[in-house]
Amino acid sequence: MTVEFAARGSHAEIEEGTALAPKFDADGLIPAIASDAGDGTVLMMAWMNAEALKATIETGEAHYWSRSRREMWRKGGTSGHVQKVREVRLDCDQDAVLLLVEQEGPGACHVGYRSCFFRRVAPDGAGGVRLETTGPKAYDPKAVYKTKP
Amino acid sequence: MTVEFAARGSHAEIEEGTALAPKFDADGLIPAIASDAGDGTVLMMAWMNAEALKATIETGEAHYWSRSRREMWRKGGTSGHVQKVREVRLDCDQDAVLLLVEQEGPGACHVGYRSCFFRRVAPDGAGGVRLETTGPKAYDPKAVYKTKP
Repeated sequence: MTVEFAARGSHAEIEEGTALAPKFDADGLIPAIASDAGDGTVLMMAWMNAEALKATIETGEAHYWSRSRREMWRKGGTSGHVQKVREVRLDCDQDAVLLLVEQEGPGACHVGYRSCFFRRVAPDGAGGVRLETTGPKAYDPKAVYKTKP
Repeated sequence: MTVEFAARGSHAEIEEGTALAPKFDADGLIPAIASDAGDGTVLMMAWMNAEALKATIETGEAHYWSRSRREMWRKGGTSGHVQKVREVRLDCDQDAVLLLVEQEGPGACHVGYRSCFFRRVAPDGAGGVRLETTGPKAYDPKAVYKTKP
């Protein structure tokens, strides 16, 4: 399967058509959400360039673009926590991607949690807010990222 | 409850601390995902500025920033499809927001679907790909957006 992107057409074509015409931003990137294909847990949000989106569709494994390292990365390349992609979805404007994935290993988050969204905003008891961790870590990142702390 | 954002601290403080220190991009925006608090369906992805994030936390209803209209909007202000926010979560880097919401009305998507992510990438039968709609519309947008088509 070879992935080619269509030109952005009319409003109606983009929103309800069948042509894959993703909108990349000024930096050539599109936001990508990964959620668990089984129970719907949102695991992470990252970015893709055109190459990463094509690689994700063509290989069935999640690829992203690292804005800090300025390189494409295959999720799980270091940790083994690969994401097998069941579905690649586009939103109505085709300016966001949703991956429905089977997350291999204990979690998607390099901090050690299953999901990167492991903290909720909660009252701090003094009229303000604080972040509160929603559950325990799923693994010890030091044991997984031996060479890349 | 008054929301104030903390300054961005050390790597460890941002990733595992209790201070709410969201990272807004060069345009002052942070990506925000809304997912159904009940079954985990990812409903939409939009953007928030600082004001929208504060309003969301303080009111318990989702507010976003419209990049095209350049204004804050309360989700459901026109359609009545308000999002009651059960939890506001931040990811490890605090550069993405996840809302766990109760979506009022039949859907979050202005095109008429429950979720904006109503199309999946599928083989087109000729070695390429096409978008395929995953299910029927949940409502008729023409009937809902009478004055704003």
